[in-house]
Amino acid sequence: AAIPLTLDALRSAYAQGTSPVEVVAQVYDRIDAVADPGIFITLFDRAQVEAAAHALGAYDPNLPLWGVPFAIKDNMDVAGEVTTAGCPDFAYTAEATSTVVQNLLDAGALLIGKTNLDQFATGLVGVRTPYGAPLNSIDPDIVPGGSSGGSGVAVGHGIVTFALGTDTAGSGRVPAALNNIVGLKPTLGSLSATGLVPACRTLDTISVFALTVADAYAAFGVAASYDAADSYSRAIGIAPLAQPAPYPVIAIPSPDSIRFEGDTAQAASFASVIEALQEQGAVIREIDFSALYDVAEMLYYGPWVAERYAATEALMTTNPDALFPVTRKIISGAEALTAVDAFKGLYRLKDLIRKAEPLIDGCDALCVPTIPTFFTVAELEADPIGPNNKLGTYTNFVNLMDMCGIAVPAPPRSDGRPGSVTFLASAGEDAKVASLATRVEAMGTRTLGATDWARPAAPVLAAPCSSAIQIAVCG
Amino acid sequence: AAIPLTLDALRSAYAQGTSPVEVVAQVYDRIDAVADPGIFITLFDRAQVEAAAHALGAYDPNLPLWGVPFAIKDNMDVAGEVTTAGCPDFAYTAEATSTVVQNLLDAGALLIGKTNLDQFATGLVGVRTPYGAPLNSIDPDIVPGGSSGGSGVAVGHGIVTFALGTDTAGSGRVPAALNNIVGLKPTLGSLSATGLVPACRTLDTISVFALTVADAYAAFGVAASYDAADSYSRAIGIAPLAQPAPYPVIAIPSPDSIRFEGDTAQAASFASVIEALQEQGAVIREIDFSALYDVAEMLYYGPWVAERYAATEALMTTNPDALFPVTRKIISGAEALTAVDAFKGLYRLKDLIRKAEPLIDGCDALCVPTIPTFFTVAELEADPIGPNNKLGTYTNFVNLMDMCGIAVPAPPRSDGRPGSVTFLASAGEDAKVASLATRVEAMGTRTLGATDWARPAAPVLAAPCSSAIQIAVCG
Repeated sequence: AAIPLTLDALRSAYAQGTSPVEVVAQVYDRIDAVADPGIFITLFDRAQVEAAAHALGAYDPNLPLWGVPFAIKDNMDVAGEVTTAGCPDFAYTAEATSTVVQNLLDAGALLIGKTNLDQFATGLVGVRTPYGAPLNSIDPDIVPGGSSGGSGVAVGHGIVTFALGTDTAGSGRVPAALNNIVGLKPTLGSLSATGLVPACRTLDTISVFALTVADAYAAFGVAASYDAADSYSRAIGIAPLAQPAPYPVIAIPSPDSIRFEGDTAQAASFASVIEALQEQGAVIREIDFSALYDVAEMLYYGPWVAERYAATEALMTTNPDALFPVTRKIISGAEALTAVDAFKGLYRLKDLIRKAEPLIDGCDALCVPTIPTFFTVAELEADPIGPNNKLGTYTNFVNLMDMCGIAVPAPPRSDGRPGSVTFLASAGEDAKVASLATRVEAMGTRTLGATDWARPAAPVLAAPCSSAIQIAVCG
Repeated sequence: AAIPLTLDALRSAYAQGTSPVEVVAQVYDRIDAVADPGIFITLFDRAQVEAAAHALGAYDPNLPLWGVPFAIKDNMDVAGEVTTAGCPDFAYTAEATSTVVQNLLDAGALLIGKTNLDQFATGLVGVRTPYGAPLNSIDPDIVPGGSSGGSGVAVGHGIVTFALGTDTAGSGRVPAALNNIVGLKPTLGSLSATGLVPACRTLDTISVFALTVADAYAAFGVAASYDAADSYSRAIGIAPLAQPAPYPVIAIPSPDSIRFEGDTAQAASFASVIEALQEQGAVIREIDFSALYDVAEMLYYGPWVAERYAATEALMTTNPDALFPVTRKIISGAEALTAVDAFKGLYRLKDLIRKAEPLIDGCDALCVPTIPTFFTVAELEADPIGPNNKLGTYTNFVNLMDMCGIAVPAPPRSDGRPGSVTFLASAGEDAKVASLATRVEAMGTRTLGATDWARPAAPVLAAPCSSAIQIAVCG
């Protein structure tokens, strides 16, 4: 029988003598069984990964990711491999491995391949790719989610323990909601962007998909490092995952402002999660989400689309037909924008954040539905932009507001589709949102991703750590 | 005999029975004696200010600025008065008083008038105004400095105790150097911008000119308040002025990178200040200033000029001839800039800051000449842009790097012109740079501004306060 690819299960298997080559075999068997050619843009040769597994030598429990298979979105560099960013005409062979991937390899992880994505990480659907879109791991009629679609689907199928995505508008969270997995979107700057093809350089972060919160957080902790070579890197201490505070104050969208696009099953799922949190002691504060939606709208209709243009300028100016049609259409919106527009956008963002601050002040976190509803592949074919933007309802504002977040599976909805909520908090509060997510993760009954692996017991977490207290010493 | 208009001398006079009406009389007598119609754009009627002095009632030593005369740059609103920003066609009558001015009035200060400026605060020379430029208070051949020219000259002449300027590129520091006074440029966001005509909204701050460091810092402390209505306001605690640390580490431009435009007297003046600081215990670290100069250059040649366009857009698009010719020329540079250019500018700034960080890390402050050299009014008439930009050598990078600073008079140069250095440090370190400035202020022998008032004894400062120590409490 297959080993469930959680970290605990893998470590336990390795401690009992399983060889990483056996795990590699399981990974490739699973890939064969899934038989979805849209997941990987580059799948490494089995022999190549087996060689890497052999090279690990004897099991070393001190290497936190020893023998752990993972995949990365194909907008990150691996030395000697092609990076496409989902665009054949953009593709190049990388000379160096991106810093985050190297951190993971150094911790013993085994890289399996590079996954499909919405071209240039522009989209939340996963079907904006000339490489043939991956299928949603749970329901092939539904979009896989994007832009980190291949990574989300790979984890959903239990092909790998974790996979890196990136997240500018929600690309690290929407696929999690659609594939019944965890999507950890770190504080901007905590993971180095060296070796990453930018989408919006001021708003990008690498993100982590995994089957459990503990696994996502563990990979995040290994991946994070301050990188002087990345001007947007920040020195952010990664706190250990601890128990959530007993009575967290959690803000949710008010009944007047919450959006489900008419999806009553999604509304009921969210309500039941909030009710359960409340029963566990959470203090729920309903807030008007208008200012947050206004921020969200700025991500594509404000000046930040110019960052996508800056990242693709060589193609956009010399060979725009090289881009996927809808991607080109979105990015070309930047051509009409002036520097004055850019600064006006920055002013408006500041004004909207100021408007939202009193609503959020004093809360430990926000909790939102990760997505308002589900969309089918057919719906995206009919309208490539509208449903995409709706999927970003609860994700688009997050990086503009410099928040961190984590999408976590909730019990299945009444119709069997996966439930998912996202916790959001200020930059640096990654541990806090992850700890809150462990509460939702433990609710109800379900399997992991699209697999038949039972959800493991809740992780044993350290006692809660109070916030840092600042004292001044005068003498 | 005139009362020296320092806070201590004024408070002492008031405590001994002097009436604020007498001080108002001194102010207007001084204005008459100086006889420079270029200082004020709006000089309030003497009767109006006398009425305000009468309205103060009995001396109240608990009001920190009771009876203290001050002026403001004419880009700040006072209810019922005209704001021009140095442009007659832009002028409007303000409905409300700007937050910072109201804070000062509430503390008992007496507002005398609104001062001349480089139009739209664009310039460092003080002669880019259609209202007739003020004359430098010390040498009328030399430019008064700008953009806060009238405010700098008013303080230099001892007309008022302090005057507000604004500082985007150095407008709160360059006039200080040229008029032998103190120019305190606070941390961005510590003084509210509500009621201020913006220059570059992301980089503007109101600033304070005074005859002494203690007076500038006292006015700053009163002026500062968090303002929810200003989206760029930040809640920054204003630390009390304390003694500088005994062995501060101070970075200065390396001999290879320091710029004096051939002015050997300025070089000698700066060297002697640094030597004296060193004798007092400072540890001097010479650093390559190239990255800082590159940042400085971006202020006018990078995208930030688009912020000036955003602030003057109504005129620039409908009536550009309403602008002063050189001002129009500079601001129209924004017309060629795209949103892509704007974001590329932000990226480059981040990269340059990252390059400068290792040079600055571990230093308590930077110390620079406030200006590299002096320029005459005639030189500006011949070339309105070149000398202006050179005056910004040591000021233009500061707000882009989110630093605070203070320009402080040094002993006169060998040719009698005023000496001036500026201390700079990270956002929030206003007290630290001001405390270092008190050391330079006490050096040598000189009078205050252009007056014959002797420099008072150095202020008695509290013991140094160590930096805050952050501890985390886990339980």
